[in-house]
Amino acid sequence: MVRVGVLAASGYIGGELLRLLLQHPEVEITAATSRKYAGEYVFRVHPNLRGITELKFSPNDPSKLTSSTDVVFAALPHGESVKIVPQLADAGLRVIDLSADFRLSDKGEYPSWYGYDHPRPDLLEKFVLSVPEINREQVKGARLVASPGCMAITAILALAPLLKEKSLGIDREHIVVDAKVGSSGAGGKPSLSTHFSERFSVVRPYKPAGHRHAAEIEQVLAAMAGEKVKVSMSAHAVNMVRGILITSHLFTATAVKPLDVWKVYRSMYTGSYFVRLVRDKQGPFRLPDPKLVVGSNFCDIGFEIEERTGRLVALSATDNLIKGAAGNAIQSMNLMLGFDEKTGIAMAPLHPV
Amino acid sequence: MVRVGVLAASGYIGGELLRLLLQHPEVEITAATSRKYAGEYVFRVHPNLRGITELKFSPNDPSKLTSSTDVVFAALPHGESVKIVPQLADAGLRVIDLSADFRLSDKGEYPSWYGYDHPRPDLLEKFVLSVPEINREQVKGARLVASPGCMAITAILALAPLLKEKSLGIDREHIVVDAKVGSSGAGGKPSLSTHFSERFSVVRPYKPAGHRHAAEIEQVLAAMAGEKVKVSMSAHAVNMVRGILITSHLFTATAVKPLDVWKVYRSMYTGSYFVRLVRDKQGPFRLPDPKLVVGSNFCDIGFEIEERTGRLVALSATDNLIKGAAGNAIQSMNLMLGFDEKTGIAMAPLHPV
Amino acid sequence: MVRVGVLAASGYIGGELLRLLLQHPEVEITAATSRKYAGEYVFRVHPNLRGITELKFSPNDPSKLTSSTDVVFAALPHGESVKIVPQLADAGLRVIDLSADFRLSDKGEYPSWYGYDHPRPDLLEKFVLSVPEINREQVKGARLVASPGCMAITAILALAPLLKEKSLGIDREHIVVDAKVGSSGAGGKPSLSTHFSERFSVVRPYKPAGHRHAAEIEQVLAAMAGEKVKVSMSAHAVNMVRGILITSHLFTATAVKPLDVWKVYRSMYTGSYFVRLVRDKQGPFRLPDPKLVVGSNFCDIGFEIEERTGRLVALSATDNLIKGAAGNAIQSMNLMLGFDEKTGIAMAPLHPV
Amino acid sequence: MVRVGVLAASGYIGGELLRLLLQHPEVEITAATSRKYAGEYVFRVHPNLRGITELKFSPNDPSKLTSSTDVVFAALPHGESVKIVPQLADAGLRVIDLSADFRLSDKGEYPSWYGYDHPRPDLLEKFVLSVPEINREQVKGARLVASPGCMAITAILALAPLLKEKSLGIDREHIVVDAKVGSSGAGGKPSLSTHFSERFSVVRPYKPAGHRHAAEIEQVLAAMAGEKVKVSMSAHAVNMVRGILITSHLFTATAVKPLDVWKVYRSMYTGSYFVRLVRDKQGPFRLPDPKLVVGSNFCDIGFEIEERTGRLVALSATDNLIKGAAGNAIQSMNLMLGFDEKTGIAMAPLHPV
Repeated sequence: MVRVGVLAASGYIGGELLRLLLQHPEVEITAATSRKYAGEYVFRVHPNLRGITELKFSPNDPSKLTSSTDVVFAALPHGESVKIVPQLADAGLRVIDLSADFRLSDKGEYPSWYGYDHPRPDLLEKFVLSVPEINREQVKGARLVASPGCMAITAILALAPLLKEKSLGIDREHIVVDAKVGSSGAGGKPSLSTHFSERFSVVRPYKPAGHRHAAEIEQVLAAMAGEKVKVSMSAHAVNMVRGILITSHLFTATAVKPLDVWKVYRSMYTGSYFVRLVRDKQGPFRLPDPKLVVGSNFCDIGFEIEERTGRLVALSATDNLIKGAAGNAIQSMNLMLGFDEKTGIAMAPLHPV
Repeated sequence: MVRVGVLAASGYIGGELLRLLLQHPEVEITAATSRKYAGEYVFRVHPNLRGITELKFSPNDPSKLTSSTDVVFAALPHGESVKIVPQLADAGLRVIDLSADFRLSDKGEYPSWYGYDHPRPDLLEKFVLSVPEINREQVKGARLVASPGCMAITAILALAPLLKEKSLGIDREHIVVDAKVGSSGAGGKPSLSTHFSERFSVVRPYKPAGHRHAAEIEQVLAAMAGEKVKVSMSAHAVNMVRGILITSHLFTATAVKPLDVWKVYRSMYTGSYFVRLVRDKQGPFRLPDPKLVVGSNFCDIGFEIEERTGRLVALSATDNLIKGAAGNAIQSMNLMLGFDEKTGIAMAPLHPV
Repeated sequence: MVRVGVLAASGYIGGELLRLLLQHPEVEITAATSRKYAGEYVFRVHPNLRGITELKFSPNDPSKLTSSTDVVFAALPHGESVKIVPQLADAGLRVIDLSADFRLSDKGEYPSWYGYDHPRPDLLEKFVLSVPEINREQVKGARLVASPGCMAITAILALAPLLKEKSLGIDREHIVVDAKVGSSGAGGKPSLSTHFSERFSVVRPYKPAGHRHAAEIEQVLAAMAGEKVKVSMSAHAVNMVRGILITSHLFTATAVKPLDVWKVYRSMYTGSYFVRLVRDKQGPFRLPDPKLVVGSNFCDIGFEIEERTGRLVALSATDNLIKGAAGNAIQSMNLMLGFDEKTGIAMAPLHPV
Repeated sequence: MVRVGVLAASGYIGGELLRLLLQHPEVEITAATSRKYAGEYVFRVHPNLRGITELKFSPNDPSKLTSSTDVVFAALPHGESVKIVPQLADAGLRVIDLSADFRLSDKGEYPSWYGYDHPRPDLLEKFVLSVPEINREQVKGARLVASPGCMAITAILALAPLLKEKSLGIDREHIVVDAKVGSSGAGGKPSLSTHFSERFSVVRPYKPAGHRHAAEIEQVLAAMAGEKVKVSMSAHAVNMVRGILITSHLFTATAVKPLDVWKVYRSMYTGSYFVRLVRDKQGPFRLPDPKLVVGSNFCDIGFEIEERTGRLVALSATDNLIKGAAGNAIQSMNLMLGFDEKTGIAMAPLHPV
């Protein structure tokens, strides 16, 4: 059994990591830390885990983690992770970081996107930004992994193959990424914006410009395209708890055919269990919809072509807490440790829910 | 009192017309027709109107309408309106049509967008496509008016001023209109797609390409710009009943400043009660959100600028059944008949709801 | 024009009072107070009122109110109202209080239900607990009125006629009042319980025993029955913002017939516009449902009889912010001032919403 | 591997059986029947299973099932099951029936509750009504099992221990069972009642009297109490897809203490993994709430005591498709076949969702 720790386990991503890891056959959770809830039973903060675990939160103490764990998942806020994770990395632990602190490979990006100078640029080279369906082999060999943001993962999976394939002629200056997300992505801290009466039935454009996930997406897409790519991203909060739909509007130099797009996706994703290509001719779910991935690690991808405007609309859907966060991280761990990547995270989505 | 008839009054738009007209101080409803429910009390189909009206549905008989009404609102499906409305128009009635059958001024567009040859192209010239905030004077003089689709109205109000103002340098080839709409826009007919268990918590991309409202939007924008405009539209069903948010992604030739955009909007909308310009620095509702217009005839408009990508994001929100349909139609009637345009439709939005 | 003030106008009930009073033809709002937001525009706190009013909040200063207003609506929290309202009452203002501080006529009830000794028992005799459909004449003559809690109003309207009519033989020891309420009744203050991700899709039994509204209901029912009545109340939070459904389970000494119950309701409510008796044989809305009263001052009442168990199930539905609070209060004001009771509050419910 | 068939696998309960059985380590699904979809891929009807199974529906042919399966789950509608299941039972298959056709042990109950004379009363004696936490040993020895209705299971688990324990002095004449249920319990067939715009945000009292599940509950409670028990049941549809909350209002002869009730529940449920006793002093989830069991086979049970009215309020929550149907059925199969009862159904609930 691998000894696993979860840093900052009291948030929604932390709770989802615990829920999944408790059911993982190769893993023993030896630490679940929380500054605020140290000493408290985990099930008091994550009441869905009542009756399932008697685990208690421990303090956020990196030195304890180095002795009690082999792998650490860090679910700390941006700016906090960079203060703690380096000690774990230096001590030789395997780390899967879910903050943004090790996602961008260029240290020069941190001041503008996150407002701080990165204190450990040396680590940025060592961290692999993991989307296993895109860079599985790299992840297998990694000891340090950063898991992208939930919207970034979902967008990357739809866009990477399209940008990689030059023959599609994607216009790299006019890529619009329009995101619709559930409330759980915003975390568990109450505020007026998340007060039920104010949040119910909204379509709230909470970040129409300047969303930080654009930086991660551009980084991966540029690597795919071998050229700079500009991502125009807008994020909207909608009336649900779990799930993301990313609508990517792309313009192509010349007309593309559905079969061309199919081929591009298939050539990258054949063999990737967690990507499902969805394009049905009947029923209510002809294209990706977050409703159909809730509870699972799937990313559903589909597309439509509009000849009249020279547009390719790519659609991708995930459960933001699973494939968008905890699931992608555990999948990465599975690869790093030589397990089948599906181990412990192959649950089917719930429907209807 | 003006004698008013509502053709096809059993649908959601018909019901909303009745609800509002019943409270309109200058109007008497003399006919509410329904093929299916003729003879039945209106409140059996629209149970919110229990205790409010004893009106009964009458058959869809145009000849009766010509004698009993001065103004007719036609809420028939596309393709049906064109069979009935011409008789009313020929008889000299004032008609406000809410179908698509008289929206497009170029008869050549009907075969490709709606699949039929228009039988009365002469009427297309006489019908005014009414968005009072854009063409109030034209509407005042009209006897025949077409009310645009709910998404079209909402998009047009955000986009028309921007396209009209040349100095903004809007790129007319890459206009992305990403719509998020509630269920009521799809009408009252049950199907598997609208079955609650299948529809709850979705973000369903039901028309990512080829949406018909694009034709209306392009027509108005082209008139504004004095040049052809291409609209790339995608529509998504989200987890609510009422409301539309339109996110329009525009690219500008050179950097634009917030003040420039403010000026453009103000110069068109000052004096227009039903357009509210929204851009607050605090609180949960800094930008337009359909939640804040529910129950009212308002269209809220806001925007954000992303320098890095040269993008202007315009946001507009309406209650799809009111400003998107029944309210816009009644506002048009008010103008046609010389009433204050707010008469009977100046209700404040409900909040929270 | 009557000069009206709203005390504590920044909450949801305060906001609803403002929204409705702004559209009331006989009223001028001369004060809207808020301790926290004094000096701020009302529309910053109630953003639905953007573009509708330029009113600003003033401090909670009773001495200013006595000179600037004729009628005051007090929407203060329980325990706060009793500190301020007496000054207004003593100064001769008409007051409609929406807290619990003047609802119970027996001062002896305050320590056990609300934890304080009532400082002004003399006022308890002067305040009329107003449910106009039950005690319209009393309200007409009152200068001081208390409006019951939203669940109490809804339950009282269904139960009072049944308890009054002895021939039904209602068992006064086993009256179960099972309430299902939307989030807006809990007010606008964020907390973990009202955090969207924690509150969405719940059926939360937040007060299965000991709910304070039981005291008000028992007081009114005892007056109706002429005998002590015991109310067993439980309240549940459900997944919506507006609305209350009260399911009252009653046991009868002998079998009752539907017609008997109809008669009892009709004899009390004929002529009461805001009570609708609902019992349809077809359609989705055969019995009261809060969905059908949203946006209106209606209380829908219906019932079903279960012979096998000797049970009468009475159902009542309101919009908790309107008939359950602001609407009932304005209706009371209308009566106190000699206006038609419907003035300014006769809006039809929205549907669908 | 046990060969398992699912009869009528195209409904929501059928889909849930398939989803869970596909992940069951001891089971091979050898048949999934559907009259309507025979020959079609299962994932076309249950799109959450895309990429998970290539199974196709086969016709509802009992003779084929007898050769290809060892165990059959029958998810047929009431009245249909009784036509097909007897052949399977007579052929010696193990059958777990999820309809009502074999739930009531007294054939005399069928005409009044279900409107037909039971054609095979001999089978009624052989079928065990399975709620493993109540009658585990009986289920272990059974070859034919009926799984109660979702509301019945949820109510029985809260009520059976209380009725069994005489010292609590439960009044058996005034037991009110007030149910709040999600939409999935009503199945997958579209209708006006389930049309999203009509069903969203309702609290619909769809069966205030005469609910059939009362018969099952009374049967089990009478067996527990050793005396006749009368259940007064009302069912309400609320704004969610999955989940049931049952609020049971009980009156006790003398005052009961929390500790007494705890003891009663503990003595019956200690060792039963799937029952969680919930009564927390803090947090939003102090008592059972369906939100906290979604995706799991748990039934959460809690209670509150109201001395003033002599009332004991028992609360129980389940995921209606799992512990309320498919999960309870698979748990029963596990016991019948000698597996650990948790096999394949020990998933933790999702939160938040």
